[in-house]
Amino acid sequence: MEYQAYFQQNREEHLKELGELLAIPSISALSEHKGDVLKAAEWIADSLRRAGMENVEIHPTDGHPVVYAEHLHAPGKPTVLVYGHYDVQPVDPLHLWETPPFEPSIRDGKLYARGATDDKGQVFMHIKAAEAILKQEKELPVNLKFCIEGEEEVTSPNLPGFLESHQDKLAADVILISDTALLAPGKPAICVGLRGLCALEVSVFTANTDLHSGTFGGGVPNALHALVSLLDSLHDEKGRVAVEGFYKGVPELTAMEREEFAKLQFDEDKLKKDLGLSSLYGEEGYSFVERTGARPTLEINGMYGGFQGEGTKTVLPKEAHAKITCRLVGDQDPQDVIDKIEAHLHAHLQPGATLEVKATEKARAFTIDPADPMLQKAADAYERIYGTRALFTKDGGSIPIVETLSRVLSAPSVMMGFGLPDENLHAPNEHFNLENFDKGLLTIVEYLKSL
Amino acid sequence: MEYQAYFQQNREEHLKELGELLAIPSISALSEHKGDVLKAAEWIADSLRRAGMENVEIHPTDGHPVVYAEHLHAPGKPTVLVYGHYDVQPVDPLHLWETPPFEPSIRDGKLYARGATDDKGQVFMHIKAAEAILKQEKELPVNLKFCIEGEEEVTSPNLPGFLESHQDKLAADVILISDTALLAPGKPAICVGLRGLCALEVSVFTANTDLHSGTFGGGVPNALHALVSLLDSLHDEKGRVAVEGFYKGVPELTAMEREEFAKLQFDEDKLKKDLGLSSLYGEEGYSFVERTGARPTLEINGMYGGFQGEGTKTVLPKEAHAKITCRLVGDQDPQDVIDKIEAHLHAHLQPGATLEVKATEKARAFTIDPADPMLQKAADAYERIYGTRALFTKDGGSIPIVETLSRVLSAPSVMMGFGLPDENLHAPNEHFNLENFDKGLLTIVEYLKSL
Repeated sequence: MEYQAYFQQNREEHLKELGELLAIPSISALSEHKGDVLKAAEWIADSLRRAGMENVEIHPTDGHPVVYAEHLHAPGKPTVLVYGHYDVQPVDPLHLWETPPFEPSIRDGKLYARGATDDKGQVFMHIKAAEAILKQEKELPVNLKFCIEGEEEVTSPNLPGFLESHQDKLAADVILISDTALLAPGKPAICVGLRGLCALEVSVFTANTDLHSGTFGGGVPNALHALVSLLDSLHDEKGRVAVEGFYKGVPELTAMEREEFAKLQFDEDKLKKDLGLSSLYGEEGYSFVERTGARPTLEINGMYGGFQGEGTKTVLPKEAHAKITCRLVGDQDPQDVIDKIEAHLHAHLQPGATLEVKATEKARAFTIDPADPMLQKAADAYERIYGTRALFTKDGGSIPIVETLSRVLSAPSVMMGFGLPDENLHAPNEHFNLENFDKGLLTIVEYLKSL
Repeated sequence: MEYQAYFQQNREEHLKELGELLAIPSISALSEHKGDVLKAAEWIADSLRRAGMENVEIHPTDGHPVVYAEHLHAPGKPTVLVYGHYDVQPVDPLHLWETPPFEPSIRDGKLYARGATDDKGQVFMHIKAAEAILKQEKELPVNLKFCIEGEEEVTSPNLPGFLESHQDKLAADVILISDTALLAPGKPAICVGLRGLCALEVSVFTANTDLHSGTFGGGVPNALHALVSLLDSLHDEKGRVAVEGFYKGVPELTAMEREEFAKLQFDEDKLKKDLGLSSLYGEEGYSFVERTGARPTLEINGMYGGFQGEGTKTVLPKEAHAKITCRLVGDQDPQDVIDKIEAHLHAHLQPGATLEVKATEKARAFTIDPADPMLQKAADAYERIYGTRALFTKDGGSIPIVETLSRVLSAPSVMMGFGLPDENLHAPNEHFNLENFDKGLLTIVEYLKSL
């Protein structure tokens, strides 16, 4: 049977299975979901076994486990290691979800659920592609390995150690990853660059107790004022990060790179309209695709302090907190960036306030040469299924493990993504366009057979 | 029996009764406590009846009710109207309370509970003082009225209307209020000035959904960045409010007034030590007592946006919120101040963000001449009980209704407070020093008998 017909015939059953996986709230950042994360690992392992993969193992780590599987019966053929993750982001603010995040629901050809596109949906496609080839042809055209982890959304603290200690088991000629997006519907893309990441939690403390704003207001430090002043000092009026030395290691865009970005013909007006924004905002002198594709950033992801309830409370809060992440490019060193931000914060702290900074995550940026044959073959596979050759793009996101995978396993990473940029990753109403589920299955089969 | 002996003999019973009142979580700001606020009103009414007061009434309003009572059997004598409130502030952050806020507990001669000093404990003293005189002497030395409201902590939205429509019933020669503090233990004070208040809720909105900081970070507005920038713009580097026109109507301190403040010999080093602060902070050129007693302020009381949970979430929040209150002095008009802040915020908003400002409370500042005989007699009463004549002070807090009471009822307001400045009003571990409970009862009796 043609693969198209095969996947069509099994589509309902496949989506039902994927729905089971998406219903597991495997939020790796929240300790109360530890059991759910394990449940998702077990689900992935079962699914790999049913697909015909062998030596399926759930490897415990100090955090959440890694699922491994292999099918090594193609001597002389390349070995492909599929990497992905079965953990998902938190779901708040919950009230903004149109349907509950862990009750998968299909509307208008889109599958809504936390993890639908990032990354359970895309991992599932690789399992089903392997299963399809094995069912149809009784053998695989390559040696295939799976390494599916449960800590990607908390920056994979335990995977590097796992890779180091299982180098032989995981050895591969190419690492295949589907955790990125097409450029737009019908416009496939292969990511050849990812930004790095560092994360900080900043806390400011003033008096040893909350104080009445009548008795003390205007006369003592207010933790929220001190934090607001600190955070506002992190950018200048041109949208640049104002931390001294922050841009060390950031390569200036060449004229050729600017041309490449321009070729993408990204529609900023459409983006504004889609997001309901009167204007975009960012570092002066760069377009949206340049800002997100080639420039580092510092963003406040959360902040809280003082009274948040209904009505008024005339209180001077004793503490205030913020969560910050930076996206890094080029040779920026995450620890160096953290050190510089911490020094900046200490230098700008208001009198009477004290500061605590906790660094939680660190990853370097990643790039790969598009001329690599493993990438060119991926572009071919996309072209045969989508009718359009994939563009090589740089993505603003971070998959910290990609740099580590390529380095430790000495193999190129092919980021063959099937998401779309507007699928609400990390936000309410995450979804996955099923058109790319269908085409993606075929593209994966095509790619494996072409190697 | 001497009053001292009477109160000593009944002390245990009085504290037990007060404990019942303090156990009622009558938080006026939170609608889920509406029933508790009513319960506290009923408790106050019962207590007034048992004390011997007459025509006790619970007047419904559009919000929480007003409790009224009278005892008018002293022809030719002045009429005293006791004003107070039986509602309390919210209690979060709850985890910082050493004992639960609504389970009164006595430790080291201090009664711990929300409302212990602000204002249930102080209202209770007036009821028990009247009861004591009636029990001991069968009559009161003055005509006495009570007007105890349940919305003081939400700036008394319904009391002005109640006063206007019950002017005859409430008519008095002096309004007696115990909702302020001594200067320090053993140092009584009568407040002759209160700051006014206005409150605003500020919300900033950017994209129509939360966004992934990898895909969009650095390229679109972030609601938290926009709000942080707005809030930081509200003060200059000298701690002054940077809103154009904010200081209109603020009288500059005269040399004489500065001398009066200096006479208080306020110990800023002790305050720093007590609060665990390395330094105080506020408007340049003014001492702590000047800043809190004679200068207006703008304080952020609460702020929130984005991810507040455990771990990291790489999100660009679509909205962020802050709660602000200003303390006003002199002729500052609350509505005018609100208008100017709103204009400032609109003028400083980052591109791509939108703004919503909601004004929730408004009250003008209040002052009274210390030479008024009703105030001088209060100072005498303090002197007889405390052995020290009360100082006339200006308080940084706001009791918005004081200005209204004096204006509508054309009578001087005597703010005869028995709290202490460090009793954690509006904060965790609010408490009331029982030494001032004991002396306060005697001072009130003394005052009523002196009129």
